[in-house]
Amino acid sequence: MTADVTAPAAAGRRGRGSSARRELRQHVKLKQLPAILRRIPLMEVLDEEGLQIVEHNAETILEEIGIEFRDDEEALGLLKGEGCDVKGTRVHFPRGLARKLCSTAPRSFVQHARNPERTLTIGGNNIVFAPVYGPPFIRTIDEPRRYATIEDFRNFSKLAYMTPAIHHNGGTLCEPVDLPVNKRHLDMLYAHIKYSDKAFMGSVTHPERAADSVSMVRILFGEDFVANNTVLLSLINANSPMVFDGTMLGALKVYAKAGQANLITPFILAGAMSPCTVAGTLAQVLAEVLAGTSLAQLCRPGAPVVFGVFASSMSMQSGAPTFGTPEPTLVIFAAAQLARRLGLPFRSGGSLCGSKIPDAQAAYESAQTLLPTVLAGTNFVLHGAGWLEGGLASGYEKFVMDTDQLGMMQVLAGGVDLSENGQAMAAIREVGPGAHYLGCGHTQANFETAFYRSSIADNNSVEQWEAEGAQDATQRANKLWKKMLAEYEAPAIDPGIDEALNEFMAKKKASMPDAFA
Amino acid sequence: MTADVTAPAAAGRRGRGSSARRELRQHVKLKQLPAILRRIPLMEVLDEEGLQIVEHNAETILEEIGIEFRDDEEALGLLKGEGCDVKGTRVHFPRGLARKLCSTAPRSFVQHARNPERTLTIGGNNIVFAPVYGPPFIRTIDEPRRYATIEDFRNFSKLAYMTPAIHHNGGTLCEPVDLPVNKRHLDMLYAHIKYSDKAFMGSVTHPERAADSVSMVRILFGEDFVANNTVLLSLINANSPMVFDGTMLGALKVYAKAGQANLITPFILAGAMSPCTVAGTLAQVLAEVLAGTSLAQLCRPGAPVVFGVFASSMSMQSGAPTFGTPEPTLVIFAAAQLARRLGLPFRSGGSLCGSKIPDAQAAYESAQTLLPTVLAGTNFVLHGAGWLEGGLASGYEKFVMDTDQLGMMQVLAGGVDLSENGQAMAAIREVGPGAHYLGCGHTQANFETAFYRSSIADNNSVEQWEAEGAQDATQRANKLWKKMLAEYEAPAIDPGIDEALNEFMAKKKASMPDAFA
Repeated sequence: MTADVTAPAAAGRRGRGSSARRELRQHVKLKQLPAILRRIPLMEVLDEEGLQIVEHNAETILEEIGIEFRDDEEALGLLKGEGCDVKGTRVHFPRGLARKLCSTAPRSFVQHARNPERTLTIGGNNIVFAPVYGPPFIRTIDEPRRYATIEDFRNFSKLAYMTPAIHHNGGTLCEPVDLPVNKRHLDMLYAHIKYSDKAFMGSVTHPERAADSVSMVRILFGEDFVANNTVLLSLINANSPMVFDGTMLGALKVYAKAGQANLITPFILAGAMSPCTVAGTLAQVLAEVLAGTSLAQLCRPGAPVVFGVFASSMSMQSGAPTFGTPEPTLVIFAAAQLARRLGLPFRSGGSLCGSKIPDAQAAYESAQTLLPTVLAGTNFVLHGAGWLEGGLASGYEKFVMDTDQLGMMQVLAGGVDLSENGQAMAAIREVGPGAHYLGCGHTQANFETAFYRSSIADNNSVEQWEAEGAQDATQRANKLWKKMLAEYEAPAIDPGIDEALNEFMAKKKASMPDAFA
Repeated sequence: MTADVTAPAAAGRRGRGSSARRELRQHVKLKQLPAILRRIPLMEVLDEEGLQIVEHNAETILEEIGIEFRDDEEALGLLKGEGCDVKGTRVHFPRGLARKLCSTAPRSFVQHARNPERTLTIGGNNIVFAPVYGPPFIRTIDEPRRYATIEDFRNFSKLAYMTPAIHHNGGTLCEPVDLPVNKRHLDMLYAHIKYSDKAFMGSVTHPERAADSVSMVRILFGEDFVANNTVLLSLINANSPMVFDGTMLGALKVYAKAGQANLITPFILAGAMSPCTVAGTLAQVLAEVLAGTSLAQLCRPGAPVVFGVFASSMSMQSGAPTFGTPEPTLVIFAAAQLARRLGLPFRSGGSLCGSKIPDAQAAYESAQTLLPTVLAGTNFVLHGAGWLEGGLASGYEKFVMDTDQLGMMQVLAGGVDLSENGQAMAAIREVGPGAHYLGCGHTQANFETAFYRSSIADNNSVEQWEAEGAQDATQRANKLWKKMLAEYEAPAIDPGIDEALNEFMAKKKASMPDAFA
């Protein structure tokens, strides 16, 4: 999976002392799982006829209804130049054009991490897990829900770094609202770089902040390396239905032109932002992704794009988004099929839930999202851990509870071991009828790795569990994340690069007044 | 699905008054979902080569190692008569013989309920949900864990009857330890018959109790009807590895000879009762099911059999069974494939968990068992609702939480609606870019049925949720099951049949002293 990885040049770009090299050597090697290489078949829900219906309808949307590209003359000009019919900000794509334009996007691509061992391939049979993205609030069982701070952001970066089943550090782990809105992206990016060595995402809240993200990865990886490699993967939401706004288009263009990857993701609350049916939602989603990907390819043919969909259904009682329900599950399965036919890596799912707290509702909903995500063959899984309250809160307990599930998915996706050891016929012969396998040689030899070991589940007797305080899963999770943060050790970073990053941020922060809205 | 259903003759067998008929007419019709007709493809994890390896290994187990049939001369004689090599209680099947003997078992069969609308087809693309089976303890959030009573059993029978997504009333909903062990089966069966009108399971704790079960359904359905139709489905566990004991064999024979259905289920704690690998477990399971099914077919060719597997993995810390982990999930997917190739309906899965309480652990584990169960195409799902603590406790809150998940599975398995209404192109055209779908005609027309409505999830704002007491899912579930029991109304039953059942039970109880062990 990492055979096509080029080592970043930056490590040798600046003079670094022997102390830094020694620090790197001495650093305790954390356990880390590679990205999942899926060995089980795909779960699919649409047959050829169904796929063709949805694809036909998407082309109809692109041709007849059109997609709005707002506040971006350059985008309109590029699309008009390819033969789109542009009326004001409405772009109508002749049938088949968008799919043709998308064909230059790679089927898979490599996203480099500053630690080459954490570099990832996005696409193919790979599945990559990243944490929750976006919540302004924090939920722990220790205190009432509160606004997130940069300290929380750093904590989640540390937890992501330490978690073997998290492959990618993600992006907006929470929204640090204690920092100015026009500057916080710098501290957020720095927290990913400093406290982890995994790949991460760029800022999309303003084109200039996207440009800052590119500037910082140029410092980290070297300009030449970034010019020729993908080191950022950023989240471009469509304003569904059928609109891309100027902010998102601006960020998309910055990243595409820099050869960096865009996750083009219609953000769907079905019944509000798309029709209240699965097939209708799928057609609209496909049209939106085709349109956004077309623009990325016009900015730079070959710029990596991931086909994203964030699917929720609507509570008919409250109008709120609901998760873990069957309709979004069908959207995930089917959208993954559409992405594969389009030849793009796919992003969806995660550990989504509507529950305010990490209770049974949260767990049912998260599991009912995560397992379909994996069985659908999703390549990039944002919100893999920590999501609560429909994305309004990042939860510490939820984070470590979810990562336990991510670890299980890694085993499940590996499929059935059919080796001689896996077949275990010698054990069956040795033990025979009426005996037990506990002490047999095969069980002893496979004891350590035979079964997934949960970090959260309590499987002791009820008596022992009561003697230990009759704790629920959330209480055990509370202890676990605190233990992890207490044991955290930062990965080494080249002091020259660290200094240059801080210089860049200080200069940038000094160049403008703080803004909080 | 019910096209091949014959109405039971019993309703007219005894004289019944006009009052009984009026009672039936006036009875409020409960909402009830039909058995799931799966319209989505199957999730499979073994390819042809993998399936052949497992099938070959199963034949090797049958031939070389053999299966123990203990305390049952009749079984040994029947198997010897077909060409098995019998040494003591060990039966060696010539390669291919067991599979040939199994070929007379039907690919699917109809299990009749006393309410013909609740009659079910077991097999094919159908999925049937039944409640938890077996726990001696009761768990609610109102009190400490305690032993189950017949009152609990009746309550779960009522809840099963009232739950639309429960299609089958199950069997040992809990073990009523307040009643004598040698008589409680009578009250348990009666509670299924009296408090519900759905199909149910027979007793297997003693061959005589199996015979009592058949006697009671003869009273309920009429002797002629039972002679020619299946009205009982009973759980025959193999004593894995590779043993059937005299109790289970006795019950199996009673049911098979009466044309009633047996669920032949190796009860597997992998690492103890089977090898600690998936492929090894599968081969042993297949061998055990082949052996048990062969005997059922020798008792009565064509007697319905369901290929069952109960799969758990072992906690390497405590030795306890663990659930919702990836290894049992792989067993479910693969065993369903083996059952289809053998031409038998398949039983596995459910809402299994190791957690003592209905917390996030319970929910993660249950969802991670239930969804694979459905995607595997499992035909009969025991333990669909209410299971806690590795099967030691039936939980009231867990029951209603799980049934909410069962309802979701019903929608999911229905697949994507590709009708014109499902495609929703008119809505997409009507709404257009940048608007929303909330008020459009299509949303209004589909509002009621568009999305699954959870009975447990809270999707209100955090402010409203806090104002309502900041309850977790378990607290809401506690209210729900109490409300259901408070609103319960018994289905009508023919007074003559009811009287005959009570006469039978009274006579049976008077015939022997109480036993409590």
